[in-house]
Amino acid sequence: MSIKSDEVNFLVYRYLLESGFQHSAYTFSQESHVKHTSINSTQIPPGALISVIQKGLQYVEAEVSIAEDGTILEDAPPLSLID
Amino acid sequence: MSIKSDEVNFLVYRYLLESGFQHSAYTFSQESHVKHTSINSTQIPPGALISVIQKGLQYVEAEVSIAEDGTILEDAPPLSLID
Amino acid sequence: MSIKSDEVNFLVYRYLLESGFQHSAYTFSQESHVKHTSINSTQIPPGALISVIQKGLQYVEAEVSIAEDGTILEDAPPLSLID
Amino acid sequence: MSIKSDEVNFLVYRYLLESGFQHSAYTFSQESHVKHTSINSTQIPPGALISVIQKGLQYVEAEVSIAEDGTILEDAPPLSLID
Repeated sequence: MSIKSDEVNFLVYRYLLESGFQHSAYTFSQESHVKHTSINSTQIPPGALISVIQKGLQYVEAEVSIAEDGTILEDAPPLSLID
Repeated sequence: MSIKSDEVNFLVYRYLLESGFQHSAYTFSQESHVKHTSINSTQIPPGALISVIQKGLQYVEAEVSIAEDGTILEDAPPLSLID
Repeated sequence: MSIKSDEVNFLVYRYLLESGFQHSAYTFSQESHVKHTSINSTQIPPGALISVIQKGLQYVEAEVSIAEDGTILEDAPPLSLID
Repeated sequence: MSIKSDEVNFLVYRYLLESGFQHSAYTFSQESHVKHTSINSTQIPPGALISVIQKGLQYVEAEVSIAEDGTILEDAPPLSLID
């Protein structure tokens, strides 16, 4: 479950590309050398960064909605990414 | 739990800045107009993007390690961000 | 015959664009605010920067090939932009 | 008196650097591979691009102010880089 910085960079690079930030994608590819990593880019599905962020939020939401005794809190507030 | 693109962009921008990708951060700030969003940047802790990605991986790992009947699989393989 | 920095920037911007340096052109347009100048871009012919540089070299070459007494030196060496 | 594109690129790169356009200078250095040329950068004086542009303008001004019969036109209009 460890995250390597190369992997984060690759997800970010793909996000920039897929979102149409072409100049940012270019600059980032140069500055991070992300293209020189050994990551097999064909293994990264489209939208991978957003997908993993969504799962991260679900995880936090699950934590928040379960009380210490294991009961599920019905009225847990909705979460947003930034709050 | 919805993710707004402004929020993802802000996390990405902060990641670029914090990781020392200064030219990418500049270009992305221009291309995404991320500085013109209403996000209160003081609310974003350092390392926020990596933190939420890690939680996303934990979520996936939890899914993988629980069988359909609810039993916990002891020998679930470790996950990596990209595999 | 004065040169305003806005004018130099505009020539440089057009050079970047015309030469296919699209990412540099984008970043420079953002960093220099060159698009917000009052320069009428329709007045700039293609290749303007290279054209004026060539004329600058011709000027230097003329200076070098004319002796102080006004005679023309036949064997003045060819100039290059950088030497 | 020929201009090589490598030489123009080098002058432009130095102009970007000297003028404080650090992000443009970075992107241009990557996109043009200007650092991989054989140009001896120690030979380029500061302000070289502006200097050669000024000389180019002087050349044009001289052309404009001399009539076909060789007489000097006293009332030649001042030139600007862009007009």
